[in-house]
Amino acid sequence: MAYRPGEQYEHKEIDIASLPSKRIYPENSPVHKVGRPPKQKILDEFTGMVKETFFTDDPLRDFKGQTGSRKIILVLQSIFPILEWGRDYNLTKFRGDLIAGLTIASLCIPQDIGYAKLANLAPQYGLYSSFVPPLIYAFMGSSRDIAIGPVAVVSLLLGTLLQNEIDPVKNVAEYQRLAFTATFFAGITQAALGFLRLGFLIDFLSRAAIVGFMGGAAITIGLQQLKGFLGITNFTQNSDIISVMQSVWGTVHHGWNWQTILIAASFLVFLLLAKYIGKKNKKLFWVPAIAPMISVILSTFIVYITRADKQGVQIVKNIKKGINSSSVNEIYFTGKYLGTGIKIGVVAGMIALTEASAIGRTFASMKDYQLDGNKEMVALGLMNVVGSMTSCYVTTGSFSRSAVNYMAGCQTAVSNIVMSLVVLLTLELITPLFEYTPNAILASIIINAVISLIDIEAALLIWKTDKFDFIACMGAFFGVVFVSVEIGLLIAISISFAKILLQVTRPRTAILGNIPRTTVYRNVQQYPEASKVPGILILRVDSAIYFSNSNYIRERCLRWLTDEENQLKAKDQQRIQFFIMEMSPVTDIDTSGINALEELYRNLQRKGVQLVLANPGPVVINKLHASKFTELIGDDHIFLTVADAVMACAPKMEEEA
Amino acid sequence: MAYRPGEQYEHKEIDIASLPSKRIYPENSPVHKVGRPPKQKILDEFTGMVKETFFTDDPLRDFKGQTGSRKIILVLQSIFPILEWGRDYNLTKFRGDLIAGLTIASLCIPQDIGYAKLANLAPQYGLYSSFVPPLIYAFMGSSRDIAIGPVAVVSLLLGTLLQNEIDPVKNVAEYQRLAFTATFFAGITQAALGFLRLGFLIDFLSRAAIVGFMGGAAITIGLQQLKGFLGITNFTQNSDIISVMQSVWGTVHHGWNWQTILIAASFLVFLLLAKYIGKKNKKLFWVPAIAPMISVILSTFIVYITRADKQGVQIVKNIKKGINSSSVNEIYFTGKYLGTGIKIGVVAGMIALTEASAIGRTFASMKDYQLDGNKEMVALGLMNVVGSMTSCYVTTGSFSRSAVNYMAGCQTAVSNIVMSLVVLLTLELITPLFEYTPNAILASIIINAVISLIDIEAALLIWKTDKFDFIACMGAFFGVVFVSVEIGLLIAISISFAKILLQVTRPRTAILGNIPRTTVYRNVQQYPEASKVPGILILRVDSAIYFSNSNYIRERCLRWLTDEENQLKAKDQQRIQFFIMEMSPVTDIDTSGINALEELYRNLQRKGVQLVLANPGPVVINKLHASKFTELIGDDHIFLTVADAVMACAPKMEEEA
Repeated sequence: MAYRPGEQYEHKEIDIASLPSKRIYPENSPVHKVGRPPKQKILDEFTGMVKETFFTDDPLRDFKGQTGSRKIILVLQSIFPILEWGRDYNLTKFRGDLIAGLTIASLCIPQDIGYAKLANLAPQYGLYSSFVPPLIYAFMGSSRDIAIGPVAVVSLLLGTLLQNEIDPVKNVAEYQRLAFTATFFAGITQAALGFLRLGFLIDFLSRAAIVGFMGGAAITIGLQQLKGFLGITNFTQNSDIISVMQSVWGTVHHGWNWQTILIAASFLVFLLLAKYIGKKNKKLFWVPAIAPMISVILSTFIVYITRADKQGVQIVKNIKKGINSSSVNEIYFTGKYLGTGIKIGVVAGMIALTEASAIGRTFASMKDYQLDGNKEMVALGLMNVVGSMTSCYVTTGSFSRSAVNYMAGCQTAVSNIVMSLVVLLTLELITPLFEYTPNAILASIIINAVISLIDIEAALLIWKTDKFDFIACMGAFFGVVFVSVEIGLLIAISISFAKILLQVTRPRTAILGNIPRTTVYRNVQQYPEASKVPGILILRVDSAIYFSNSNYIRERCLRWLTDEENQLKAKDQQRIQFFIMEMSPVTDIDTSGINALEELYRNLQRKGVQLVLANPGPVVINKLHASKFTELIGDDHIFLTVADAVMACAPKMEEEA
Repeated sequence: MAYRPGEQYEHKEIDIASLPSKRIYPENSPVHKVGRPPKQKILDEFTGMVKETFFTDDPLRDFKGQTGSRKIILVLQSIFPILEWGRDYNLTKFRGDLIAGLTIASLCIPQDIGYAKLANLAPQYGLYSSFVPPLIYAFMGSSRDIAIGPVAVVSLLLGTLLQNEIDPVKNVAEYQRLAFTATFFAGITQAALGFLRLGFLIDFLSRAAIVGFMGGAAITIGLQQLKGFLGITNFTQNSDIISVMQSVWGTVHHGWNWQTILIAASFLVFLLLAKYIGKKNKKLFWVPAIAPMISVILSTFIVYITRADKQGVQIVKNIKKGINSSSVNEIYFTGKYLGTGIKIGVVAGMIALTEASAIGRTFASMKDYQLDGNKEMVALGLMNVVGSMTSCYVTTGSFSRSAVNYMAGCQTAVSNIVMSLVVLLTLELITPLFEYTPNAILASIIINAVISLIDIEAALLIWKTDKFDFIACMGAFFGVVFVSVEIGLLIAISISFAKILLQVTRPRTAILGNIPRTTVYRNVQQYPEASKVPGILILRVDSAIYFSNSNYIRERCLRWLTDEENQLKAKDQQRIQFFIMEMSPVTDIDTSGINALEELYRNLQRKGVQLVLANPGPVVINKLHASKFTELIGDDHIFLTVADAVMACAPKMEEEA
């Protein structure tokens, strides 16, 4: 589709008379000037900034122009979304939720028992945590697909952080109390972040870092399961690969139990097969979902019949019967463990939040509904606060169970209620049946579950698209695998921050050239056909000019000029007389930036080069005016486009001797 | 200057045949495609990034293609710039340096004695610090105008930080040792930052924050001088304005000494008058420069004659005669004060560096020579390391003395050598003469000196140009004045960082419209005449799309669309069918960013809106290809310019019922 000079562009269907027919200005028409937006009042400017930072989603939009009583209903509905969607709830939806709830319940019960062990807690605490928090979430949360409960990575992280403080074997009671304390403060952290609308803070952990961290955590968790898988009794407390491998090989001759290995290996094969079937045929998603429960039932039965526990196969022994007891009095609100609890809680809470918000967003986007991230955080936070008072440890959304929930056709958070009730029945009625469940089967179930956290495809894609991201990914991965979960996390955060700092200190700059037969100016490296304009250097600065990069930008500009001049000298060509700075990407400038521009202007003047600006944005032009920089370089050296600037500079060029 | 369609643009003097005559493509010519730069090898890409981050100035440029012996000379010259400029040194230059050196010496001697008190050290340490460090700097530094020595703000900062650890009155020896330790590590920090080419780290303190911090420090220092000025003996140790004012008013009836006040006030008037004269007539710059020395001589004489010290006028008493003794053995290299020393050293070293590098840059720019920031840091660092071993405390470039140095016509760092030798003579010969110098006169000299650190003009300019910068400025100012130097510094750094984080989490976005009779698309808020294209929403994203902002950008895009659709619905106009994202300012994208684009694409598809990209940059287009995003949206939905995209979309628009 080419369009013709001097003619209106024609199209039958719609009126596009307003579209530009030509770039060329009609003869003698004035060149367009750079616009200055109307000046905002300081207060407006400030509230605008605050609003954009904290209230991007305009949460009070619905409240505008409502009556008093209607507002109260809206407030209640916004705190308890169940009041909103509950009114449209019907049997069809319930059918979906019931099936989904039963499916995730059968998946979560064996996982819960295993994950509790990762957190160094007794098995019933895993079940407790799948009872209360999902109930709270169902009333307060707005995701329809997330499945709430204990998850592998958070359990591992919590376990590692807690055992650094208190020995979970020698001081069981204290350890538990610290776990509830951490859970309480994890909840407070989450709710506070949401309430203060600081949810964007979790965005500071880059996706690449999360991929690496998750992969590393999965390997660490998998390795720790070798204890149960091989039936080893003396196992290291450390989680790094070297300590674990030493434990494993050190016991190869007299510490492994072949009966355990037999059970573990055969059921792992069964679970992997089920997973494979589920992947091949999406309709059979329920096969991998109920496989863990079947494994538990079968293996328990086998052990009970064969009394393999007498042969050294370790079993769960006793899970306390009955529902959660209150743990309000166990939380440390004073004393030396308060600080520790807060610290661990903040870390675990943030990681849990990262996981939950990624899940929520993914499924909301798949079903095309909107989630209010900050409100979600308040819901997750309160769910953990209540959890900490009812013997639960930190819970969040589980990737694998949410996916099953989604595939099983869940419609609303009612599936979480169904799951919660099934867990309740389990706690009240059938926990004694788990007595003979071999630990080995739990190891197999966990290994099977965490395998899907290792996302090799994502890592490959990261490698292909962004090498720096890949470093972050691998840093986090190796940090977790070779040192510890905390170190991996620290590496992930540090590299993420380093990337941000790099971005703001070393912005890109590019020399522009004219694309033949157009007035378009583009990066000469990207468009080799673009040609430089003799006597004029056109440079695009690709970032806001702030204190963090203003010196660099000034120096880089001068270096571009020197390089260019040396080249021209070598070829004996016309010297540079105009330096056009394309400012389209310069979205903002601060006082240091203006200072740098002033210095640049003076440096250039001394070299006999005129600084010319093209297309400064609204904020920038206002600040340039306010600081009188426009007076310094002259209003006639600021243009709407590079093309205009070139057109204006060309006639002024002095002929060289 | 307008140019005509279909014609070559004509100009007599120069050949600009290569310039575009028209934006319109000749009939049937293909639309320009977005270019993909040749793919770099990973290693090249990585080294390119490292080079741009750490070696922006290409420090080895001069070494290329040189012989071995020449290289050695170049290395020596680069470590000791005196070897380079020393060869062109002549008598004319020396005349300038001699006069400048004598002038700054007369200015620095009284200041040094006063500043040593700010650091809670005996007066001779101020003089020591004006003897050794300037000598070292003269050989290693490359600034021609900077005047080295103790400065007010760093002295105050060091004093405050040190007295938090050790009482300077009760434990004089330990306090001194810690001061030398901090000085040693300040030097190590500076040299390391330079050597590791991490000098850009000091750019993270924004100019606005520095203006506020300096102003606050000046007020704090001025207030502390009230002790000497009013002759108060019992004075608070705290530096905040409230404690100081309580001390001052609490002693008004029986603690003030009128003789002291008389001396202090009259000489302060004299100094201010001298400063005023110097400002009015730039040729009389030497009047304010020698006024402090004259005040010292006169006041000392007056006190000696009248024996005013018997009337309660406090005098300096004794300054130890002789040059610096070695303090190598006094530095704590082990023990509990090592860590404290490192901590204080790092902070003081960074602040000193900020001051020195600002001065160096300012004067280099005024005389138009280049400074290698990283090499300067190494020079400053080694000067402090040597200083710490010869009884000096942290020194850096002084703003006021450097300005005098410049105005007195200094040519090279030899003026520092001259100053250093004058200080040497002072130490060896005339320190006993300072015995009767009243403390009040030192207070007047310091008050007079720090007044110029309060830069109200700069603060006003900051207010006018950038409100956020102003908050940083005032935060630092009030932090220093009302709490303490450390808190002020902490506030300054925090606000600076908050600004960076805000920049990377909440980038700007803007709706573009067509500027009448052109193919230029600009922000409709900045150019009210720009008109939106019916059925098409054009949005410019003003930042690299990174993990820290990818979710925000996606959500913001959708919100723009919703807002626009609601408006259109209200007016019953054509619905949006194309969403053009102008990517010129999007300089980079990472995996999270691509993810967000994919999600955005899917969200839009579901609404029946096609995503179209305009002008992705070289890095971005390569990554979009690598991640197969281009395949997802289709290569034919990526255009070189917004105008091209609009032209291509318009015919495809479906007529609405």
